[in-house]
Amino acid sequence: MAGNTFGQFFRITTAGESHGPANIVVIDGLPAGIPITIAEIQHDLDRRRPGQSKITSHRHESDEAAILSGLFDGKTTGTPLAILIRNADQRPGDYEEMKLKYRPGHADFTYEAKYGFRDYRGGGRASARETVTRVAAGAVAKKVLTSLNADIQVLAYVKQIGTISADIADPAAITPEQIEATIVRCPDSIAAKKMIDLIEQVHKERDSIGGLAEIIVRGIPAGWGEPVFDKLNAELAKAIMSIPAVTGVEFGVGFAAVSARGSENNDPFISTAAGIQTTTNHHGGIQGGISTGMPILIRCAVKPTSSIPREQQTVTSAGESATITVKGRHDPCLLPRFIPVAEAMVAIVLADHGLRQRQARI
Amino acid sequence: MAGNTFGQFFRITTAGESHGPANIVVIDGLPAGIPITIAEIQHDLDRRRPGQSKITSHRHESDEAAILSGLFDGKTTGTPLAILIRNADQRPGDYEEMKLKYRPGHADFTYEAKYGFRDYRGGGRASARETVTRVAAGAVAKKVLTSLNADIQVLAYVKQIGTISADIADPAAITPEQIEATIVRCPDSIAAKKMIDLIEQVHKERDSIGGLAEIIVRGIPAGWGEPVFDKLNAELAKAIMSIPAVTGVEFGVGFAAVSARGSENNDPFISTAAGIQTTTNHHGGIQGGISTGMPILIRCAVKPTSSIPREQQTVTSAGESATITVKGRHDPCLLPRFIPVAEAMVAIVLADHGLRQRQARI
Amino acid sequence: MAGNTFGQFFRITTAGESHGPANIVVIDGLPAGIPITIAEIQHDLDRRRPGQSKITSHRHESDEAAILSGLFDGKTTGTPLAILIRNADQRPGDYEEMKLKYRPGHADFTYEAKYGFRDYRGGGRASARETVTRVAAGAVAKKVLTSLNADIQVLAYVKQIGTISADIADPAAITPEQIEATIVRCPDSIAAKKMIDLIEQVHKERDSIGGLAEIIVRGIPAGWGEPVFDKLNAELAKAIMSIPAVTGVEFGVGFAAVSARGSENNDPFISTAAGIQTTTNHHGGIQGGISTGMPILIRCAVKPTSSIPREQQTVTSAGESATITVKGRHDPCLLPRFIPVAEAMVAIVLADHGLRQRQARI
Amino acid sequence: MAGNTFGQFFRITTAGESHGPANIVVIDGLPAGIPITIAEIQHDLDRRRPGQSKITSHRHESDEAAILSGLFDGKTTGTPLAILIRNADQRPGDYEEMKLKYRPGHADFTYEAKYGFRDYRGGGRASARETVTRVAAGAVAKKVLTSLNADIQVLAYVKQIGTISADIADPAAITPEQIEATIVRCPDSIAAKKMIDLIEQVHKERDSIGGLAEIIVRGIPAGWGEPVFDKLNAELAKAIMSIPAVTGVEFGVGFAAVSARGSENNDPFISTAAGIQTTTNHHGGIQGGISTGMPILIRCAVKPTSSIPREQQTVTSAGESATITVKGRHDPCLLPRFIPVAEAMVAIVLADHGLRQRQARI
Repeated sequence: MAGNTFGQFFRITTAGESHGPANIVVIDGLPAGIPITIAEIQHDLDRRRPGQSKITSHRHESDEAAILSGLFDGKTTGTPLAILIRNADQRPGDYEEMKLKYRPGHADFTYEAKYGFRDYRGGGRASARETVTRVAAGAVAKKVLTSLNADIQVLAYVKQIGTISADIADPAAITPEQIEATIVRCPDSIAAKKMIDLIEQVHKERDSIGGLAEIIVRGIPAGWGEPVFDKLNAELAKAIMSIPAVTGVEFGVGFAAVSARGSENNDPFISTAAGIQTTTNHHGGIQGGISTGMPILIRCAVKPTSSIPREQQTVTSAGESATITVKGRHDPCLLPRFIPVAEAMVAIVLADHGLRQRQARI
Repeated sequence: MAGNTFGQFFRITTAGESHGPANIVVIDGLPAGIPITIAEIQHDLDRRRPGQSKITSHRHESDEAAILSGLFDGKTTGTPLAILIRNADQRPGDYEEMKLKYRPGHADFTYEAKYGFRDYRGGGRASARETVTRVAAGAVAKKVLTSLNADIQVLAYVKQIGTISADIADPAAITPEQIEATIVRCPDSIAAKKMIDLIEQVHKERDSIGGLAEIIVRGIPAGWGEPVFDKLNAELAKAIMSIPAVTGVEFGVGFAAVSARGSENNDPFISTAAGIQTTTNHHGGIQGGISTGMPILIRCAVKPTSSIPREQQTVTSAGESATITVKGRHDPCLLPRFIPVAEAMVAIVLADHGLRQRQARI
Repeated sequence: MAGNTFGQFFRITTAGESHGPANIVVIDGLPAGIPITIAEIQHDLDRRRPGQSKITSHRHESDEAAILSGLFDGKTTGTPLAILIRNADQRPGDYEEMKLKYRPGHADFTYEAKYGFRDYRGGGRASARETVTRVAAGAVAKKVLTSLNADIQVLAYVKQIGTISADIADPAAITPEQIEATIVRCPDSIAAKKMIDLIEQVHKERDSIGGLAEIIVRGIPAGWGEPVFDKLNAELAKAIMSIPAVTGVEFGVGFAAVSARGSENNDPFISTAAGIQTTTNHHGGIQGGISTGMPILIRCAVKPTSSIPREQQTVTSAGESATITVKGRHDPCLLPRFIPVAEAMVAIVLADHGLRQRQARI
Repeated sequence: MAGNTFGQFFRITTAGESHGPANIVVIDGLPAGIPITIAEIQHDLDRRRPGQSKITSHRHESDEAAILSGLFDGKTTGTPLAILIRNADQRPGDYEEMKLKYRPGHADFTYEAKYGFRDYRGGGRASARETVTRVAAGAVAKKVLTSLNADIQVLAYVKQIGTISADIADPAAITPEQIEATIVRCPDSIAAKKMIDLIEQVHKERDSIGGLAEIIVRGIPAGWGEPVFDKLNAELAKAIMSIPAVTGVEFGVGFAAVSARGSENNDPFISTAAGIQTTTNHHGGIQGGISTGMPILIRCAVKPTSSIPREQQTVTSAGESATITVKGRHDPCLLPRFIPVAEAMVAIVLADHGLRQRQARI
């Protein structure tokens, strides 16, 4: 109702601020009988954690998850699964200036415009700290997906940082190992090296840089998604645009469709041993809002980190001109830690629609 | 639940197929006291209607709307407003081949994969015919918006067709008259002329062409949108991606953020006579998912019409190879009629969030 | 959101006023493949129709239903089913006095308090006219139920009118034929005769009388219902209390539990050829909010019709003392026409939970 | 979706089992600026706590609440408020027999029928332990109500235990002090004494006893509630029926309406200094699903505690006949601790509708 719940059948509700005691997610709608371990959740949380490499924020958050309910004998019980992640490394002093001034590129101004005041400690609810609950829920969603179909795999990776673009011959063939092989999470190791250098250079320049992520999903059978408003691509677009810093999203050929002809853009159907497929995949795995069985292909743009350690022009709550130099330990590029968050949100949407699809026929 | 309802506070539920008796929309959550006339609804329906110009489908649909409930003495009563639009010009014979074969680029295959069978008449529920209810609801949403703030204006226009791009000095200065001045709905009259020629050429070649739409919203005060999942941009992204044929959506600088630096992408705040604003609008009017009071700027890509009157490769329901030549009277380019649909969906999201914002403070 | 949608998986949205052009219901969430005919819907509408007997309102409404969408080749398609019922026998003149004065027992005052003004024609949305859409949706819900389990049967009947109480040896053995055998819909034919006499007497006295309905459901397997808030009895209670004129609802022993001991009220479990059952059914078929497989037993109280053709004390919108004599053709007792509405609401809740139960396990 | 979320605008989501680490509630939809203290929440939790008197369970639960989010500078921030209550006094050994046998009157059998297995420790999610989160949320709901209207007061009390009925001259005049004056929470001190004796007697007899609670709400202005499905009485009925052990609910005259005439049951309107009122309150404060401004009057029946320390007949999961003697420290009568839970659920519904009412007019 107020924006903190997502999904219909696999439904998550999250709470928590950057500098409060904890972040929490309640997952409702989980069918009984799905095996889940805390280690599986922790695995993805560790991929998102700050301080994981030289190109991410040096903050320390152990981000240890605790399951409070919904699990018995290692399996979901059908009742809600609650996961608690306590906040640790808070330095409120870092944020004192934020109390009075609006940080450019952040939600300080808009939260105050909306609510009349704001929790200014580290951005409060608007901080990307909240994505920790998305990742925890995403790990559970991945278990739902593999319970529905063992072949399903949701992978995200860095496609571009600044103007350095990875050369990916076939997105559908990328492996998790290739992605995790570099700290920037780009499976093209040559481009990855250049990307890391660029991020370090940008950091030295007290600046930040944007990037492009690509998400590929394999193993989704034909038929997932709903007509009209809850199209699979519409729901995925919302999920991805809801992640902090995302500025655009596209599916299949995406914006290249603008200058395409129908005769070249339509994907012809063929019969194969694996069933009906298309010879090309311009549509990116979704047609009419429903999965075709072809790999789902999504790309999204992520803006450069708004928190940069330079003096910027702004105003105070009272409307007076001021300058602000944002303190704290920020990522010079959001992409390496964005990857597990993107995977999580895509997995959450797909788990929801995988369960919804069980209602399609009597 | 099954994808036919959209919105929380301004909530629409639609029903109807391409070749059934009628399409209908029920709007719930309308506060009492909003003046609405059937003419206001009809105005936008007429902008979407087929047969409106030489570059749109030549089908004839009068698309006359009838209000069944929720209005008394010319004002909303607080109870649901139902709008009925009967279907008229159906030629079932045109679609007989579709019964057995899947049209490339359409949802024939995915609907059958989902539901086990399908209403093959004109694409059934998957036909863009359903957008007639979006436009009717959008006209009502616009009335909600102007009731909340008389200055709000939602405008969409064609920015690009194929590789012909319009030159728009300032999107925030575009007027409805400039948009409606050309049948292609591009406010740059020189580009519009070329676009029309291109569409006619493509039509002669029995092909179709894609395009880019730009949507600008003026007058939204700072503070609309919700934290975390129901961010204003996330909800807008879903709304736009749910329109048939959309392949991508971006806000503000959008995909250009990939190669931007934080120092150049951040928009500095300043105090003006009109309140706190930003000197630039790279963010496109939304920060942290909440409106800043700057114009909202959205772009979306629309693929070339899938229905083209040429032979294409496909398969039958039984999985046998076949060719299909899609009959019927289709738009060679979707953009001119897409414009009112895009406006409608944006207006629906904004009306929803305008009402939601009334709950932000006690 | 504004109270016109009901259900999660089997979800109905209704619109329409007493004296508007039509009432409409959109049913979303229907799985594909359920056979439905218009005759099945009309059958229940005819049981609710005014003018059906000497003890009901003499208004004439043909209440003919038209299906606008969601059905193809006689089966549901998975897309929303919309049913339209036009309003016919309106006599606006009957209601002119209502424009200024509040009818005692009606919602005239509360609607005006809520919305600032009201559609005074026949009570507008607050008229029991809206139950026509409940009955239409209920007929579809019954088809969902029998598709899930052919043995399911939802029956309601009159248990008491005034102080005349029916003698029902075994509610679980009642048949539809026994209920429809009398115009008052009481399966005890001796009591039915007395009830009819009483209603005619009350009518002559320009008064009205209340009654008690009993609802019995057979064939629901163990396991339907959700924990905590959406308990099956909680959802049924809401469904029944939402019907105009209901003042109370109870399950199993109901209010008699107040003076019972645990040792006598607990129902012992036993193993039978038909599975695990209880030797008694004080619990009325639901335990912990979930069905036990025993018959579900509900009773509800219905107040005497508020519209009575006598002078009553009231006030005008301006707050001045006045008297009102409600005109129109009203039922002296609501129960005979209430029965199909109660069945419909119970069937709608059960269809919803029957579908929900398909998500209980992976 | 799976029954663990309640409310539209004031929306609570709960998680937690009887013997898991904690119970938690997330409240979404809270407007910013409402002052709340942990002491206010703790006050109501203490009224529900076991071990509070000689006639309640002797279990020890400190039930200390911790606020995890959504509060800053003592006021709600507009973001979700999460409250954590850890479970303490667990004796798993007490429950070992429950692993194999179904306790009569409990949800052991139905949960297993639904989910295929169950968390048998203390009833898991089906234990009344979950009501701790209802009470915590209810305390917050009461703050919303007094923020909307300082005069609003939600009070519940015991009206009857077994056949001992309290003599309450005017429910609308009862005070919190009168209710809390006796450990049984009955404001008639003479009846209260008899009720306490009866409960002690029943406890000695290794049995349990039912009772009747009355809930009175003062200060709700006319206009709260929604048409058709979300009528205020319908939502209250659901809320109350969702509390464990409730078997019936009635409003105003309730079941007495069955034998009433319209001429006596209708409440005449009059003009008073305080506005339009009714001379009598048979309707119990709600007409057409919307509040009239008169006191809201609800009664509900609570069955005798199912857990009784005597041998009872049952079956095992394998379907074999067995006897069970339920161990543990149970309340011989649920009513004294039920009172704060009933108040909480009523407050939650009213807070929801108080916020909803802010959307009734443009």
